[in-house]
Amino acid sequence: MRMNEGVEWALHSCVNMTWLDRDEAVTAKKLAAFYDLPAAYLNKQLQALVKVGILTSTSGPRGGFKLARRPDRITLLDIVTAIEGGEDAFRCEGILRKGPGGRDDVDYRAHCEVSLAMRQADLAWRRSLAGTTVADIAATVERKHPGAGEGTRARFAGI
Amino acid sequence: MRMNEGVEWALHSCVNMTWLDRDEAVTAKKLAAFYDLPAAYLNKQLQALVKVGILTSTSGPRGGFKLARRPDRITLLDIVTAIEGGEDAFRCEGILRKGPGGRDDVDYRAHCEVSLAMRQADLAWRRSLAGTTVADIAATVERKHPGAGEGTRARFAGI
Repeated sequence: MRMNEGVEWALHSCVNMTWLDRDEAVTAKKLAAFYDLPAAYLNKQLQALVKVGILTSTSGPRGGFKLARRPDRITLLDIVTAIEGGEDAFRCEGILRKGPGGRDDVDYRAHCEVSLAMRQADLAWRRSLAGTTVADIAATVERKHPGAGEGTRARFAGI
Repeated sequence: MRMNEGVEWALHSCVNMTWLDRDEAVTAKKLAAFYDLPAAYLNKQLQALVKVGILTSTSGPRGGFKLARRPDRITLLDIVTAIEGGEDAFRCEGILRKGPGGRDDVDYRAHCEVSLAMRQADLAWRRSLAGTTVADIAATVERKHPGAGEGTRARFAGI
């Protein structure tokens, strides 16, 4: 049960975009070059972020990707869900239906104690991811490594 | 990012075993028949539980699987980890190493804010699963459905 590596790329790309001017679009090629990633595959992840309204995408000579909303309104959960989908990691197939007293008209996702406990864990995971925004990450990085934002802007300008 | 369906089977099989006598071994065939599951594949999951000391396995005419320890000492996390492995869902590839100022001698799993936040969520998930034992599940089921344990024993006797 491992996440797509695109999650890491998308998260870092969004954090990097918090340090750019709000009206500055950056291409997938530049975002990929920043970490030496394959641009076509990163582009696929960025398109997934556009689809759910985390990024906007514009075409043309000064086109590229921008954050679609304020970084303090973009949580890690938003990004992870955009890439990985919103389904729980635990898949309840409702095997109790085949057990003694099992019923076809019962939704075991809501009535099976195993399923409920697994869902509880999934919610704890989501709650944790929803509690951190890309703005939080950027602020912590800047606090621990003063100049990180400036360095990121300079790097993008030089690519 | 979905779990193996064997997780659901293993969890339910362990809960069912809490209702059997401590010295009563039950075969993979019987455990599988309980929910109409494929016995060979369930057996594979049960062997994984034996490997980490959740179940014991004995051979012979009265052989089969038993809980290796008290049900209140077997958490959902123990079972999930036995089937899915103990790795975090988020895979930190340390892409910061390729970024500006990136260093080969830094373990980014411990120093990258993205990685740390993702790990925090993973820990929240683990903590939730570690907070529930198969004994807790069995007790809740018995409370909501009095006679569930008795019914389970009768079903196993009849298979």
